[in-house]
Amino acid sequence: MPISGFPEWLPAQRMIEQRVLDRIRTTFELYGFAPLETRSVEPLDTLLSKGETSKEVYLLRRLQADENAKDDDQLGLHFDLTVPFARFVGENAGKLQFPFKRYQIQKVWRGERPQEGRYREFLQADIDVVNRETLPFHYDTEMPLVIGDALSGLPIPAVRIQVNNRKVCEGFYRGLGLEDTAQVLRTVDKLDKIGPAKVAALLIETAGATQAQADACLELAAISSEDGSFVDAVRKLGVSDPLLDEGLDELVRVVETAREHAPGLVVAELKIARGLDYYTGTVYETQLEGYERFGSICSGGRYDNLASTGKEKFPGVGISIGVTRLLGLLFGHDALKVSRSVPTAVLVAVPSEQERTACDRIAGALRKRGIPTEVAPTAAKFGKQIQYADRRGIPYVWFPGENDTVKDIRSGEQVDADATTWQPPVADLSPEVTAG
Amino acid sequence: MPISGFPEWLPAQRMIEQRVLDRIRTTFELYGFAPLETRSVEPLDTLLSKGETSKEVYLLRRLQADENAKDDDQLGLHFDLTVPFARFVGENAGKLQFPFKRYQIQKVWRGERPQEGRYREFLQADIDVVNRETLPFHYDTEMPLVIGDALSGLPIPAVRIQVNNRKVCEGFYRGLGLEDTAQVLRTVDKLDKIGPAKVAALLIETAGATQAQADACLELAAISSEDGSFVDAVRKLGVSDPLLDEGLDELVRVVETAREHAPGLVVAELKIARGLDYYTGTVYETQLEGYERFGSICSGGRYDNLASTGKEKFPGVGISIGVTRLLGLLFGHDALKVSRSVPTAVLVAVPSEQERTACDRIAGALRKRGIPTEVAPTAAKFGKQIQYADRRGIPYVWFPGENDTVKDIRSGEQVDADATTWQPPVADLSPEVTAG
Repeated sequence: MPISGFPEWLPAQRMIEQRVLDRIRTTFELYGFAPLETRSVEPLDTLLSKGETSKEVYLLRRLQADENAKDDDQLGLHFDLTVPFARFVGENAGKLQFPFKRYQIQKVWRGERPQEGRYREFLQADIDVVNRETLPFHYDTEMPLVIGDALSGLPIPAVRIQVNNRKVCEGFYRGLGLEDTAQVLRTVDKLDKIGPAKVAALLIETAGATQAQADACLELAAISSEDGSFVDAVRKLGVSDPLLDEGLDELVRVVETAREHAPGLVVAELKIARGLDYYTGTVYETQLEGYERFGSICSGGRYDNLASTGKEKFPGVGISIGVTRLLGLLFGHDALKVSRSVPTAVLVAVPSEQERTACDRIAGALRKRGIPTEVAPTAAKFGKQIQYADRRGIPYVWFPGENDTVKDIRSGEQVDADATTWQPPVADLSPEVTAG
Repeated sequence: MPISGFPEWLPAQRMIEQRVLDRIRTTFELYGFAPLETRSVEPLDTLLSKGETSKEVYLLRRLQADENAKDDDQLGLHFDLTVPFARFVGENAGKLQFPFKRYQIQKVWRGERPQEGRYREFLQADIDVVNRETLPFHYDTEMPLVIGDALSGLPIPAVRIQVNNRKVCEGFYRGLGLEDTAQVLRTVDKLDKIGPAKVAALLIETAGATQAQADACLELAAISSEDGSFVDAVRKLGVSDPLLDEGLDELVRVVETAREHAPGLVVAELKIARGLDYYTGTVYETQLEGYERFGSICSGGRYDNLASTGKEKFPGVGISIGVTRLLGLLFGHDALKVSRSVPTAVLVAVPSEQERTACDRIAGALRKRGIPTEVAPTAAKFGKQIQYADRRGIPYVWFPGENDTVKDIRSGEQVDADATTWQPPVADLSPEVTAG
């Protein structure tokens, strides 16, 4: 029986997912990110040290655990890839080269109540850069470019990366005279859910804001631009603060760098906050065109205080593609399809079981040249063997004989062929993934 | 802190692991196996339904679980990929094409006491074929060929696949007059651990064997051959039984098919039994040359009764590469190395921060043609930027200028270059993995 929140794809969908993952991985490597995989479990105190997520952790317990042995009880499945990465960096700092750029593509688990687009087990594809003590800001500008590159090579709707900077918000709130900037941030973060009137009321009620201060916060959150013009819009609100200036400078650099290298990809959106507490500067969210109402499919930000060894700190910036979330949405809307349900390009027909060894030899010759090949399961009538190929979308059937022939069962065209030289069109070598 | 039994590789080792996984996956796809990934958890009763493994299961519990809600308590992490696959086939039979060939590369978990070569979290790479009602025997002959192909393309020691057939053993024991063939099998399985004298004593004590019967069982277990000659050796023991005949015929087919397509890969080894109870015919184990004492790195067999929907049954045959076990052994003996610790082939040096945008443009042009490229983290002195490349094993440093140049920092050779046309040798495009 299916288990709610633990999705499983059929093989054809898994082939699409692999295509997506191959593209993501290749792109990450083109930018020089090295691969990392961390264990699936962390000590509970590591998982809880970053706040806010304690409700979501799955703990492990051995079925036959000794009641008195408590060690295993303290292990939980990781709920993201950033916290394990920060732990890994602190633990292995002496063996790593800094700045350290890594990617990590793994399952994560959260014991949340499942709902559309929310899973209990799901796949994330993360990149992060960390450095000892300080991390140059230009890495903040690289993150959206990597993601844009990775996703633009796939047959999926266009993405729009929304960027903000916590220093802008905190500096602005502080410049306004509001002290509890974290509380203001959390409240403004609810804007899309509860609307401006309720946010204003909450700001007055829980963050000690006046009506004018609440209005100013809402005006800031309404600012958005694809270029550096948001700076003027913020200045017009008449608030000044050194942290605000710093944040505006940083945010301009992210937006202008993206305009230079990938026009249309990035927009400054001053209402973006990100729930998790560890971000200290740039924050990213990503909307999929036509699926905006389902929320962000790729998020992240700058964290200056996540990883440390006690003696040293390792500031970082990272972004994470929600692969399962993205594919769950697209599969749910039949927005992706694949040309066949198996990798196989050629089925070698078997005239009789006595000839199976010869058929295996043909298959071996084709595979040696990179052509995925199966041999028919039985020496059934050729019509039935062709049906085997047809049902799976295998494009070619090979008929052994005095002179071998190969048939494109889509067009019906059949030609003489030699297993040591025949080559299908490149497009037929692997299943084609297209928009549905 | 490291957690015993939950291994983590450094990025350079992870690159080696990925090279191994790419080769395995490519080979599986060349043989027409379709990808599948199942969820990491199964209901506890599914996990326990196949016997013998209850001690090893990790159960999940939500940290904030309601004491009264027991549902989550009944989920456990899978301990292999065969049991989840059988469950998936039964559940999705109506959506799959049979015979169904799938591969599955995933982590599995066992709450065992960790020791060398035994992990609590490890990666398996499985292939299986299942069919409705009956599965042609030739799939049993294909399994070792796929594994041989996958592993022979890697810079690792040669493998030797040892094959046996439970029908041979059970038929022989029955033909000898021994009734509890399962108990005999389990006892003979201890041969390598406790030696022939103790096995004989145990057979007499626990399986009701006479000294002569025990000796005959040991004589059978001592038979081994790289061709069909083991049949004569068995016949000489003077036992006859229809199941024995069937098993010998099957085993000959596996050995002779392998001799035809991959000489030296497979050996009939009549002591091989496999611990898990669900195998009903062919069984496989695999030794790595020079690492025989560490046990099998790739095992499997035929199972006629694992998957069913109640109405229908789905016999299958499969084999599983213990990827973590294999790599753990080789890493532990420094037997694999990689030419660099990052995917990067080119580092673009940054003359000054003002020129970073131009450097990014050069990197973009190189990446567009598939050349993994990083831009230096800071506009430090060139000596320090070259050191950045050298420490990571990045072979080329690119110097922007009126005329760009690129330097092979291994040879010191520096040449004029254009980012839209320059191409490194193919061997430098990605890190090279070699035997250590």
